[in-house]
Amino acid sequence: MGDFNQSVILEAIRRSGDGLSRIELVDATGLSAQTVTNITRRLLDDGLIEEAGRTINGPGKPRTTLRLVPRSRLSVGVHLDPAMTTVVLLDLSGTVIARSTHRTPANDPMQVIGSMAASIEELITRSGVERASIAGVGVAAPGPLDAERGTVIDPPKLHQWHRVPLRAALADAVGLPVALEKDTTAAAFAEIWTGDDPPDVSLLFVYLGTGIGTALVLDGDVIRGRSRNVGEVGHVVVDPEGPVCGCGRRGCVEVVCTPQAIVEQAERAGVLVDDRVGSDAESVDERLSQLCARARQGEAAALSVLERAAEHLSVLISTLTNMLDVDRVVLGGPFWGRLSEVYLRELPALLDRQSATRAVRGLPVAGSVVGADVGAVGAGCVILADVLSPRASSLLLEGGSS
Amino acid sequence: MGDFNQSVILEAIRRSGDGLSRIELVDATGLSAQTVTNITRRLLDDGLIEEAGRTINGPGKPRTTLRLVPRSRLSVGVHLDPAMTTVVLLDLSGTVIARSTHRTPANDPMQVIGSMAASIEELITRSGVERASIAGVGVAAPGPLDAERGTVIDPPKLHQWHRVPLRAALADAVGLPVALEKDTTAAAFAEIWTGDDPPDVSLLFVYLGTGIGTALVLDGDVIRGRSRNVGEVGHVVVDPEGPVCGCGRRGCVEVVCTPQAIVEQAERAGVLVDDRVGSDAESVDERLSQLCARARQGEAAALSVLERAAEHLSVLISTLTNMLDVDRVVLGGPFWGRLSEVYLRELPALLDRQSATRAVRGLPVAGSVVGADVGAVGAGCVILADVLSPRASSLLLEGGSS
Repeated sequence: MGDFNQSVILEAIRRSGDGLSRIELVDATGLSAQTVTNITRRLLDDGLIEEAGRTINGPGKPRTTLRLVPRSRLSVGVHLDPAMTTVVLLDLSGTVIARSTHRTPANDPMQVIGSMAASIEELITRSGVERASIAGVGVAAPGPLDAERGTVIDPPKLHQWHRVPLRAALADAVGLPVALEKDTTAAAFAEIWTGDDPPDVSLLFVYLGTGIGTALVLDGDVIRGRSRNVGEVGHVVVDPEGPVCGCGRRGCVEVVCTPQAIVEQAERAGVLVDDRVGSDAESVDERLSQLCARARQGEAAALSVLERAAEHLSVLISTLTNMLDVDRVVLGGPFWGRLSEVYLRELPALLDRQSATRAVRGLPVAGSVVGADVGAVGAGCVILADVLSPRASSLLLEGGSS
Repeated sequence: MGDFNQSVILEAIRRSGDGLSRIELVDATGLSAQTVTNITRRLLDDGLIEEAGRTINGPGKPRTTLRLVPRSRLSVGVHLDPAMTTVVLLDLSGTVIARSTHRTPANDPMQVIGSMAASIEELITRSGVERASIAGVGVAAPGPLDAERGTVIDPPKLHQWHRVPLRAALADAVGLPVALEKDTTAAAFAEIWTGDDPPDVSLLFVYLGTGIGTALVLDGDVIRGRSRNVGEVGHVVVDPEGPVCGCGRRGCVEVVCTPQAIVEQAERAGVLVDDRVGSDAESVDERLSQLCARARQGEAAALSVLERAAEHLSVLISTLTNMLDVDRVVLGGPFWGRLSEVYLRELPALLDRQSATRAVRGLPVAGSVVGADVGAVGAGCVILADVLSPRASSLLLEGGSS
């Protein structure tokens, strides 16, 4: 149980922020004083924690506070979004030390991986950290993934990507161990790593990116699924009278709830002038911003489009929360910031009305504590979780010099 | 960790069927020889296991086989279905020793609970077991439940039931500890207790009773949900052109996939003559049997109704499996037997077509290993699981003399 107890102690120290004494660790973890002493000695030797002064509380020996050494281990998190690639460098506390973004090139996947590797190298060099302290690179990518092979399979919005061996190719390019995770699953890691939920929280994470995906945390564990593809909800029907989807049905999440679908809805309703050439990510992004700004300024028609979008999203969310009976719902992702005002006003009542357990309990809805970089931060947290808790996690890491 | 290790050992012995020697237990569990010796001594003292002869394998000491004493602990399982109440008596191996059923009276809940208690008493007396060996009574009831209070809240098909304190009232009536569980969750307990799935199986259980519900097993654990109401899927839209539901939408599971809905569909299609007076459970049951028999005899119109029903159910199932990425789907419950032939023929291809992870993996579909009594057997298994693994479980037991 050594690894497990070590992760319990590290996690308690990490969550405390200011650090804990050995006696406080005994109280917090239920482990014996001897076990706490042995494990903290090992962690001190490894440089993961340090002694940070003594405090005297009444009579008896002064207590030494143990706290995390944030720079002792770092991780890189990458989010491959069809529109934008984000790279972050995290310290062991989960703090972002450095970040960079670049438009995801709309060309050959190997070139995309090449520019991803260049961004990582640039970030490491720029921030001046020791390369040896980097535990690995987590990459968040749109599903579905082939987790065994570390490949990205035909993600809906990455048109030239078909069974691309992202994990191996990036590991070759950067010479660090690489783990591949679904973007939505990574976001859930960021949320529970950064937030102050109780350790046994159960939550549904709704990720609003170029596509809509979800992730699931049950009793504090991020549920990855057997093939690590939990959360594929693009073809749940939420508006039976909605647009026809590529799957043949009408009103799937993919053609109703995504930013592109909301923009198209606004165009059909005459709220936005439909003079776009194509539906590229950039113009969708701009138009959604425009729509949200006009709603905020009180334009009824613009607001109405967003309210309808919230209503449709509530159908998806309540389908899942009625099935899963979680504590709460968290929304996040790159488009969350713009939509949050309307969505946070509309969703609670919509979800309450559709809740199967309304008689027993409420269902809190909140925005993520992590910002638009939640995918990249989460990908980095996946690596940090593996450092803190090597046994509980079961990362499929590939390559690297370490 | 004593309780946990004890449950690991008991579970290994139980699953082995013929029993295991101490050395085989060391191999099977990874526990030390000393731990296995200590725990098996305690289990022998408690009468939960017994020595069952010695086997000689080559040189060295002969090995003593340890096996479960099935009659050492018993449990009662009750399934309150709106149509039929089923009571079973289980031994520690999960075998049904005795069972009885009676039509659920359509009257005052307290009278229903009274006749439930009488059935339990009758079953205990008839089977001649010692009352002291009964660890408790598990009751499976339609959700949603108020698990804290042990009450049944407005289940859709139990019209006079509103916040009925079933757990406390039954505990008072029978003088044994009573646990209340959702019927679908109980069914999942029966499946993993009785079947030969690997210990870390993840599965979606689809329960075909008077209503349709689901249950979830992830990595071998039955997921109950925060309020113990996992699996409420009655209002997932599966047929946007289907009948109007009480919730205001069209084509919810509740008005499309239930036995009553299938019978009504056959009536609308002219396959069954619509001369029923009312829609009571008995006539629905008879008519569904008639419809299934005619489909089996090759009547195209009857078969077509069932094929449509399978198609609609596949929409629900794939919504959930795409979200949850489980190993397999199990169908069961009182109506499963009649529908299994058509459903097992239709569902695999329907689910494959809708699978988000089709490129990575298949999704096996199978009928439950437990029969129509799966709800009652599962309710009994909930109690047995608590006997075997008192710490891992967190039963809310009420009352009783023990």
